[in-house]
Amino acid sequence: MAVYTDVAEGELGAFLKHYPVGDLLSYKGIAEGTENSNFLLHTSSGSYILTLYEKRVEKADLPFFLGLMGHLANKGVSCPLPVTAHDGSVIGTLAGRPAVIITFLEGLSLRRPTATHCAEVGKALAALHLAGADFPMTRPNALAIDGWRKLWNAARDRADEVEPGLAAEVDADFADFERNWPRGLPAGIIHADLFPDNVFFLGEKLSGLIDFYFACDDLYAYDVATCLNAWCFEKDFSFNLTKGKALLAGYQSVRPLSGEEKAALPMLSRGSALRFMLTRLYDWLTVSDGGLVMKRDPTEYIRRMRFHRAIKSASEYGLA
Amino acid sequence: MAVYTDVAEGELGAFLKHYPVGDLLSYKGIAEGTENSNFLLHTSSGSYILTLYEKRVEKADLPFFLGLMGHLANKGVSCPLPVTAHDGSVIGTLAGRPAVIITFLEGLSLRRPTATHCAEVGKALAALHLAGADFPMTRPNALAIDGWRKLWNAARDRADEVEPGLAAEVDADFADFERNWPRGLPAGIIHADLFPDNVFFLGEKLSGLIDFYFACDDLYAYDVATCLNAWCFEKDFSFNLTKGKALLAGYQSVRPLSGEEKAALPMLSRGSALRFMLTRLYDWLTVSDGGLVMKRDPTEYIRRMRFHRAIKSASEYGLA
Repeated sequence: MAVYTDVAEGELGAFLKHYPVGDLLSYKGIAEGTENSNFLLHTSSGSYILTLYEKRVEKADLPFFLGLMGHLANKGVSCPLPVTAHDGSVIGTLAGRPAVIITFLEGLSLRRPTATHCAEVGKALAALHLAGADFPMTRPNALAIDGWRKLWNAARDRADEVEPGLAAEVDADFADFERNWPRGLPAGIIHADLFPDNVFFLGEKLSGLIDFYFACDDLYAYDVATCLNAWCFEKDFSFNLTKGKALLAGYQSVRPLSGEEKAALPMLSRGSALRFMLTRLYDWLTVSDGGLVMKRDPTEYIRRMRFHRAIKSASEYGLA
Repeated sequence: MAVYTDVAEGELGAFLKHYPVGDLLSYKGIAEGTENSNFLLHTSSGSYILTLYEKRVEKADLPFFLGLMGHLANKGVSCPLPVTAHDGSVIGTLAGRPAVIITFLEGLSLRRPTATHCAEVGKALAALHLAGADFPMTRPNALAIDGWRKLWNAARDRADEVEPGLAAEVDADFADFERNWPRGLPAGIIHADLFPDNVFFLGEKLSGLIDFYFACDDLYAYDVATCLNAWCFEKDFSFNLTKGKALLAGYQSVRPLSGEEKAALPMLSRGSALRFMLTRLYDWLTVSDGGLVMKRDPTEYIRRMRFHRAIKSASEYGLA
């Protein structure tokens, strides 16, 4: 969490003249986002977020991310709406970096979501899947099996430092996934990172979804599996069946899962747990302490992988 | 610039129930303040700053700082107003730290203030001096000559690493100050750190003064001298006489300086430059790189010390 780039008020004022946002009243660098610099702006027309894209974001992907946010917001999904400049462009340049202005969403991200919140997340995820169905751009999931394999190749030799036996365990998972990963399930735009930090609530009502920088085309049920991992485990790694039920029922109230999607959930959940374990493991082994990237413990996701491996039927997640 | 302490939405919500600020809509950790953790809050009644006081602030001084802000705000100075809790207290506890809610001031701090802005700063400083005159609490200036001496004792042996000859130069200044530092000039509450980061503008109009955590009792003219150092030098260390004139005329339009104060300005300005050189030098020599304290170059203030040493009369600052 950091602001990587300093922005002077003079250059920001000049930049904002290109956007229909009114007069700048204040701006504060905010400690949010691990990949970008973000500022909260107050203007005479309201609050906005200014994002400067730093090196870790692929600039060629920005039109996809911003186009998607605009598409979803216009279809009623509560997500930030990129503000179009007077010349029709969305991506400008500020402090030598690609920069955008997006609308600010009020709301709080929760450390301890309840089952009620999980139901809201399920509904919002399904609504996002439906709203994205006619989005015309595509982006392959860079963190699908091929991407996992690259991370694993870089981390495998030192994996047993994190937990003895981890290398053999993950090798066996890869062999299984490469043979048995589900094919032919309904697919389209997924969020791919809908963790509690990326969902805002006002009371029990969901007020916004943010951070679309992992969004891509992949299986809808894989996005559901990621939400099970992100929302339905307790701090002691136990699976909270009440939350699982609520999340899945919320999702299905908007977009029912097919029989094939339900049957695939245990494997998709294992895969999703592996994906987050691998990015954490890679950072754990390669990023120096005290750097700008926050290192998170990969073992939390090893525990989830093992939980899902023992699941016999998707009904154990609380599927109706 | 950092947020040192993480605050969960649940504990913040519980904390805010004690204050008449309405419902919490959002909060963002902001990259502002080198000594505290600060959050920008949006509530149903407006915007506020939540400050958690970290170790570097002396807790016994908080009633002085917060009482002063309340006193000044109530007298019409544009500064943050601490919000009083329902039980009458101002200082609460959050995340194990003393915590306060203050009103949010719109405005931009300027990297390149003009003479017009300097005139506004001069007026606001004089208004602050007048408004503080009947503030009932007192706080000695911890960074007056005795405090400088402590910093210098810790840094002197390595001072020549920063610039050869610096130790002897500063020793001579100390000898001069200890003999000739002005006494008997008008004194009272001063801001003591009124740098451009701590002053907000909306266009050419000053909209707020912030960061009263160095405020204390000392000579008013010393506060003027600090503003000359902070506002009237260019990046190449040249003194901008137009800005000096504007700042001093602005100040005198509200509180005229006495003949003794005018005559003391060169020595007070030297002393103020030494004070900021010493805190920078101390951090430069003792704080490790990559730490949370931002290290600033002490040589900028060595240059100012030399400028003021060559001043023959305060008229050279642009005094009318």
